Amino acid sequence: MSKIAVDMMGSDLGPSELIKAVYKYRNDHKDIEFILYGDENELSKLIINDKDRLSIVDAKEVIPMEIDPLTFLRKKESSLYKAILAVKNNEADAIISAGSTGGLVVGATVLLKNIDGISRAGLCSPFPTLDYNKPATIMDIGANLTNTCEDLVSFAIMGRIYSENVLKIKNPNVYLLSNGTEEGKGSKEAVEAYQLLKKYPWFKGNCEARNALDGNHDVVITNGYAGNIFLKATEGMGKNMSSLMKKAFKTNLLTKIGYLFAKKGFKQLSNHMDYKRFGGAIFLGTNGIVVKAHGNSDSYSFYHALDVANKMIEEKIVDKIKEQKVSE
Amino acid sequence: MSKIAVDMMGSDLGPSELIKAVYKYRNDHKDIEFILYGDENELSKLIINDKDRLSIVDAKEVIPMEIDPLTFLRKKESSLYKAILAVKNNEADAIISAGSTGGLVVGATVLLKNIDGISRAGLCSPFPTLDYNKPATIMDIGANLTNTCEDLVSFAIMGRIYSENVLKIKNPNVYLLSNGTEEGKGSKEAVEAYQLLKKYPWFKGNCEARNALDGNHDVVITNGYAGNIFLKATEGMGKNMSSLMKKAFKTNLLTKIGYLFAKKGFKQLSNHMDYKRFGGAIFLGTNGIVVKAHGNSDSYSFYHALDVANKMIEEKIVDKIKEQKVSE
Repeated sequence: MSKIAVDMMGSDLGPSELIKAVYKYRNDHKDIEFILYGDENELSKLIINDKDRLSIVDAKEVIPMEIDPLTFLRKKESSLYKAILAVKNNEADAIISAGSTGGLVVGATVLLKNIDGISRAGLCSPFPTLDYNKPATIMDIGANLTNTCEDLVSFAIMGRIYSENVLKIKNPNVYLLSNGTEEGKGSKEAVEAYQLLKKYPWFKGNCEARNALDGNHDVVITNGYAGNIFLKATEGMGKNMSSLMKKAFKTNLLTKIGYLFAKKGFKQLSNHMDYKRFGGAIFLGTNGIVVKAHGNSDSYSFYHALDVANKMIEEKIVDKIKEQKVSE
Repeated sequence: MSKIAVDMMGSDLGPSELIKAVYKYRNDHKDIEFILYGDENELSKLIINDKDRLSIVDAKEVIPMEIDPLTFLRKKESSLYKAILAVKNNEADAIISAGSTGGLVVGATVLLKNIDGISRAGLCSPFPTLDYNKPATIMDIGANLTNTCEDLVSFAIMGRIYSENVLKIKNPNVYLLSNGTEEGKGSKEAVEAYQLLKKYPWFKGNCEARNALDGNHDVVITNGYAGNIFLKATEGMGKNMSSLMKKAFKTNLLTKIGYLFAKKGFKQLSNHMDYKRFGGAIFLGTNGIVVKAHGNSDSYSFYHALDVANKMIEEKIVDKIKEQKVSE
């Protein structure tokens, strides 16, 4: 039986939305138990008649969007603190939160500590690509502002383990995000990382942002600032294109009729691009499984985030990172 | 009569494609003269029967994709060197090239020098947004890797002048690209630039990459590295979405029929998103008008790049930047 610690607080749609996903996931998976962290009064109303493999831990405080490590350490009554602590104390196998990203990154770092040999943990996320069967993994998408070349090498190793074991991509290749494909292009850290990565057969060199999601790039590593710009630029452009597509179908009566015929294909496209099917991002590099669900998670999205946590437990991702670091 | 110096070398499709745009632009505009720089043997074959307002300056050497300032200064026989020199010597009012971006940036910087008070020149480019009538201006999209806070302030002032005078946006607002909208978010330079920009009524704070192209952001400033990631991420996502749209229309017979009905709306969308209608980027901040046409410019795209150069001449953009710096 695996146990997932769920921070029920701090999400945009509130615990009543998250609980739907928890129930559905529990019903679909017989070997999982959930510990829910949040306001007991509120939560017990939501699970009144069905407490099978569900327990509540009372935690009234909610971690704000921005928090520094010292303040976090004082927030011992918060749902996030208690949920992460459960992983540290081996009372849970994974922690998942749809609350503050900054809080989760700070909290997991100070409580769980980085895996030996990992200089920095980072946020890794799958992205839909041109190839319907091959999501790309981008890391770091914003846990850090700047990164050293050692961090980038850690991201490469961890991103590959995620891609291979969770996304089931065979022998994933790794690229460095840069402003040009030639060796020597990019930030100082990226140029140095290139040299350190050369010895790995899976490292294929630099990649430009325009090609990262073409289906031929499995893992793309970057410092957190550029990764965050990349994440949000593609997200914004995807949203803009969808909205312009809708507008195109509304141009006149003929285009509206066109939509009725083409609906099926576009439904498929919109499902493919829907970031909610990935559930969220994974904070990789600490001694524990840490999943960041989207802040605006609905039950569909949160269900998928729970699934990511479960797959990470099944695949023993943290152990695999440790083994890889030892064999280096 | 305005004179445009055209570097005919180094583009992907070659001088025979560029010359079509030059002819068409010359025929559409009676007050412009062109000086073409490149291999005389090759060029004279292209303009054999029609030399009205066209002259050729022989230059056999082509500037490579990457070049350092000292090497550039030795390439006195190259088409790019001679074309930029014409602007420096007041023999031309603007220089346009579809060749090496690095060469143009280095060449314009060493030959034309930065405008007094401008710490760094940068590449500025218009982007299509959700609002069909309001392109956004992003600067710098990759002339620099890193930038100081003073550079970012210069970009704000120059980007605004471009947006107002060339794109005809009234009283453009300016945002700083960042990883969060709150004051204090972003790179060290961006945080410092925020403080310097606060005094301007047109400065509206930070903006995330996902919202930069929503039609409400007129000028978005960033360091060159993040700007380059932004440019290429949106470009790649736009291309991916177009290709997935085509795939969606090809799903089955019904969706194919749908395309026939919806064609008009999608043609409009594809024209709106076509980066070729903007011609290219502008290198702003040196003592001269410098336009970087897309490397893969076809005659349609190069025509628009010539139009950007012409508008910049008409609007006396360099003088306007100088005046603004004096009044500071």
